[in-house]
Amino acid sequence: MTLHHTDHRPRQLAVGPEGRGAHGALTTAPVVPAHGRRRGARSTEVRLDPASFWGRRQEVNAAATLPHCVEWMERLGWLENFDRVGRGEPTEDRPGWQFSDSEVYKLLEAVAWEQSRTGDPELEKLHGGLVARIAAAQDDDGYLGTAFGHPGLPPRYSDLSMGHELYNMGHLIQAAVARARLLGSQRAQEDQLVGVARAAADHICTEFGPEARQGICGHPEVEVALVELGRALGEPRYREQARLFLDRRGHGSLPVPALLAADYFQDDVPVRRAEVLRGHAVRALYLTAGAVDLAVDTEDEQLLEAVIGQWRRTVERRTYLTGGMGSRHQDEGFGEDFELPCDRAYCETCAGVASVMVSWRLYLSTGGVEHLDLIERTLFNVIATSAAEDGRAFFYANPLQLREEPDVQEAEGVHMRAEGGLRAPWFDVSCCPTNVARTLASLQNYVISVEEAGEAEEAGKAGAPTVSVLQYMAGEIRAELAVGHLGLRVEGDYPDQQLVRLTVTEAPPGPVRLRLRVPAWAVDARLSVTGADGIRRSRRAVRPGWAEVPTDLAPGDVLHLDLGTAPRLTWPDPRIDAVRGTVAVERGPLVLCLESTDLPEGVALEDVRIDLDQPLRAHRDGASVRLLVRPAGKPAPGRPPFGHAPPAADGEPETFEGALIPYHRWAERGPSTMRIFLPVG
Amino acid sequence: MTLHHTDHRPRQLAVGPEGRGAHGALTTAPVVPAHGRRRGARSTEVRLDPASFWGRRQEVNAAATLPHCVEWMERLGWLENFDRVGRGEPTEDRPGWQFSDSEVYKLLEAVAWEQSRTGDPELEKLHGGLVARIAAAQDDDGYLGTAFGHPGLPPRYSDLSMGHELYNMGHLIQAAVARARLLGSQRAQEDQLVGVARAAADHICTEFGPEARQGICGHPEVEVALVELGRALGEPRYREQARLFLDRRGHGSLPVPALLAADYFQDDVPVRRAEVLRGHAVRALYLTAGAVDLAVDTEDEQLLEAVIGQWRRTVERRTYLTGGMGSRHQDEGFGEDFELPCDRAYCETCAGVASVMVSWRLYLSTGGVEHLDLIERTLFNVIATSAAEDGRAFFYANPLQLREEPDVQEAEGVHMRAEGGLRAPWFDVSCCPTNVARTLASLQNYVISVEEAGEAEEAGKAGAPTVSVLQYMAGEIRAELAVGHLGLRVEGDYPDQQLVRLTVTEAPPGPVRLRLRVPAWAVDARLSVTGADGIRRSRRAVRPGWAEVPTDLAPGDVLHLDLGTAPRLTWPDPRIDAVRGTVAVERGPLVLCLESTDLPEGVALEDVRIDLDQPLRAHRDGASVRLLVRPAGKPAPGRPPFGHAPPAADGEPETFEGALIPYHRWAERGPSTMRIFLPVG
Repeated sequence: MTLHHTDHRPRQLAVGPEGRGAHGALTTAPVVPAHGRRRGARSTEVRLDPASFWGRRQEVNAAATLPHCVEWMERLGWLENFDRVGRGEPTEDRPGWQFSDSEVYKLLEAVAWEQSRTGDPELEKLHGGLVARIAAAQDDDGYLGTAFGHPGLPPRYSDLSMGHELYNMGHLIQAAVARARLLGSQRAQEDQLVGVARAAADHICTEFGPEARQGICGHPEVEVALVELGRALGEPRYREQARLFLDRRGHGSLPVPALLAADYFQDDVPVRRAEVLRGHAVRALYLTAGAVDLAVDTEDEQLLEAVIGQWRRTVERRTYLTGGMGSRHQDEGFGEDFELPCDRAYCETCAGVASVMVSWRLYLSTGGVEHLDLIERTLFNVIATSAAEDGRAFFYANPLQLREEPDVQEAEGVHMRAEGGLRAPWFDVSCCPTNVARTLASLQNYVISVEEAGEAEEAGKAGAPTVSVLQYMAGEIRAELAVGHLGLRVEGDYPDQQLVRLTVTEAPPGPVRLRLRVPAWAVDARLSVTGADGIRRSRRAVRPGWAEVPTDLAPGDVLHLDLGTAPRLTWPDPRIDAVRGTVAVERGPLVLCLESTDLPEGVALEDVRIDLDQPLRAHRDGASVRLLVRPAGKPAPGRPPFGHAPPAADGEPETFEGALIPYHRWAERGPSTMRIFLPVG
Repeated sequence: MTLHHTDHRPRQLAVGPEGRGAHGALTTAPVVPAHGRRRGARSTEVRLDPASFWGRRQEVNAAATLPHCVEWMERLGWLENFDRVGRGEPTEDRPGWQFSDSEVYKLLEAVAWEQSRTGDPELEKLHGGLVARIAAAQDDDGYLGTAFGHPGLPPRYSDLSMGHELYNMGHLIQAAVARARLLGSQRAQEDQLVGVARAAADHICTEFGPEARQGICGHPEVEVALVELGRALGEPRYREQARLFLDRRGHGSLPVPALLAADYFQDDVPVRRAEVLRGHAVRALYLTAGAVDLAVDTEDEQLLEAVIGQWRRTVERRTYLTGGMGSRHQDEGFGEDFELPCDRAYCETCAGVASVMVSWRLYLSTGGVEHLDLIERTLFNVIATSAAEDGRAFFYANPLQLREEPDVQEAEGVHMRAEGGLRAPWFDVSCCPTNVARTLASLQNYVISVEEAGEAEEAGKAGAPTVSVLQYMAGEIRAELAVGHLGLRVEGDYPDQQLVRLTVTEAPPGPVRLRLRVPAWAVDARLSVTGADGIRRSRRAVRPGWAEVPTDLAPGDVLHLDLGTAPRLTWPDPRIDAVRGTVAVERGPLVLCLESTDLPEGVALEDVRIDLDQPLRAHRDGASVRLLVRPAGKPAPGRPPFGHAPPAADGEPETFEGALIPYHRWAERGPSTMRIFLPVG
């Protein structure tokens, strides 16, 4: 790991600020709605401390993960697939799945966000080299794809259900959106990647337009991409094409592969009529992201309401404590309501990425703080869990319990399975590494939101712009407001310690409304304000939601937000059969787990219970709890594993003080078994 | 349903008794080991009462299920596939999966057992018609298959992992074994099906022999078939070929399809070294059946011990209360130890069939009564559950909990999914209906076992032959012993009532040892013996295992075996996370369940708990229990479905008397939700 950036103030980009969105400033950020009072942070506004929890991960992402992905895609021939199509060679023996092109595009998107973050000129070279190879594979009519429509391959669009052609071009377009926002709209006009994506988008509009082929792609993605490209290039046709795709979906037009059903690709019920997310989790979430973007830009309240309802039920009934989504391995899909098994939890890393995409869009459009809570939960317990410390291995699935130690040999080379318990360098289906990369590279964009004066939510405060601090990531904030800059230095070893210190480094002349998010779990939070003179001006309890800060802040003022550091028990809804009779332990935004590595010699994880009569204690960054060892008394008489009397344990249980660690750190010390929900005494 | 047989004494077959196995008599029965002291019932020895639990199902099987299967296979073109190959037509557009041939063969096997049961001459016509079409498709070198090796199809053996070619021929061979045992060895020599199967077996020995292709089939089945064909035809080469297949397995020679692993087809560890069954359940069980047959015939104690160890751990840790096997939908596979989710239980009907195959072989070879217990459990709770009352619809998966009512429209026509909750007439992968058919048609063979004099287990009783009554199915038994016949009339409405009455109808001149199985659950069983004069000779408690009966029985003597009728609670091993804090209710061999159909208006199944302070009461054929309605108190505060205090219910719960019904009868009254394990108060 190389920490080569010591100056971590937000940096002015070398590239010009020509790209101005609805809010009139450079919009280097994912998700820039055409309408709405609220915008997320621009890359120029936030810079994370490279020694902080997330800043460190960004540095590792840049230094290790990006080259790691390039290496693997080169090694496996996924990049050469473009070269071969470009040269017109037959490619019926092409390596990789039909969606391998998308990994290159997601990497390009990560590169763009990374460039917006650091301006590293090396990245421009990497970008240019990749784009040249991609561009060479593009057909004259804009079609781009290495798995169909070329010598030796099936014809274009011959398998809309599973072919992923529009999915791939969707990720190409998302990479170009990031590029366009990096360059600004003027320079984007001449950019090669943007041109390639525009040609692909035009091809899609021609091929799938209102009077053309009435098809949709089995894997949603092109919808969200087209809306965002329309935003970035000011081209309403693309948004209109996204609307067509969305409205065509849910009518059972896609042929269903064996052993699946139409809900696998959300072709069972139209988006506007669905009541909950179902089927393949990543598909459902990408589709939802596109639906929100479309609803916002077209001011389609009915569509937005429908999605919000689906989202609420999904979060309240089909989402794990970790924020993970997807209860089934079979179709990488959501389960039914309250079907949340720990051992067979799928919780694909990419579903976590997609969930953040949806939550972020919903926050921007509704302002609901619950979406920020879920983003935080998902970042700390899914995204942070997936990537190894060195940024060169990843979890694909993120189960909440592992019963048997995995075979470490499986983690070498390309991993065929996504069973969880092993971080592997690459996968046969390797969607997760590049998805983690593009998320980490754009994390700064999720740290604050801004509402300009006259756009603030509450009428009484419409006169002042509002800056909301959404996530506590140590670093520098410099919110670009019409009235000037609001600067904040964020410090503190969050989440290991839950005291966040925010120092005002710059303030505009007029009043600014500053709000700090108080997470749902922070029921004992306190906020104090100390002047530059060191004199405390106020101290008070704050409730989950928003903590308002005095509007007359001046440079040197310090805010201390104490979110509470105590580990806490978390109880599941009794309808979740899989965790009946258990509790989890959390600390701040971190879900904790018990890993077999931390058990005394000879104690099996399956025999351990938590003693609720003893208090939880903070223990480094986790918690210490009293554990009971109750070797399974067998129910008897009867044939194991069932019997006709309740199992009785022999004598008093052994007890010991057990250390729970953050879930995101499990499996770092070799093969182990693990569980989050602990049986009660 | 037509009950057209009123005379239900065992009938002498029209076909001759030329076929004599190791025990010197007609061996119309599945599984006839070359060695061993114990044999199962011949079809001539047992005839079930057609009005009894199982006799009724046999009648429905004959009258409805067999023609139903023929109709569907004709309608879908699975039979015509043979005709087209026979005519040399290109068949690249053939309907059905690559294993559809096997359904025809399993049907033929069912027909043979059914013929042995009733001698119905119409069945001979059905048989002949099907065999003629199959024979026409056989290649000159013995190869038989409609999915490979013909114009327009992939070459033979080009996909050993998933091609199922040997699997198909294995089922062909099993059908021929049943036919050969029906006809006796003399007439079998001239039989067309036997000839076809022999040619196929010879082809397999040539193609996969010691010096030939070192391959195995991705789906075990040919192994068990070849051993049995060797037995039926007295041909040791077939057994030897089975041994080769068995020994080649477990060395990773099969290419692994995406998203699976070598354990899917048991190619990860050699059979002799494996510790537990794993991967695809039906594959694992068919392989195990073949391993037992091979071990017995070759007196390979080491192999038998290995299989017994695998079986024990599988039953104690990877088997459901219902006897169902298979915890995962993804690969239709076993889970890890104690991974037994109720809602996502797969418990494929075919795995139940295969489990009976294995248990029966293990009983014959070891005499262990535990194998008979599992057979009973599986018959009543998996096999009886699958088939609808009318014999024209089936469950594919047999979950122990259903959370959401299924969409009944899915049960019309060919069912694409195996989700459980719906009995469907046919499936895209339709292995279960014909598997149920062949099992029901041969049920009589599992009712008794016989050890001839000098073969009995205990030295002191070696002078008398032993007849063991294994399963309580009302009907007539006429055990064919060297010393004469022992006749028993079995009566009683078992399992609805657990009093079984056995009347001696015929007795040989010398002493006969008669044993009655006392199931593991029958902890309060009693046996009384009453003479023909109506005077009770003895009455005593008997323990689970075997109840010995006096050896001086005479015609007219009556045995009353009272197995106890009380419903009972069943507690799971605490290591089964999925059912922590719950109990099940059983009655005799029946697992009971609570179906939403039986709940008061407005009560949701998810809110119901069982009140353990109130006694269970017998209720028709199920039980009546005190249920509490506790609408889920939400854990709070926190974001649903998780919170930081235990969920508290408001006020006193409502209570009502709830009826639990036998699990095998669920979903007969329209769409419902259901659960077997009930949360405790």
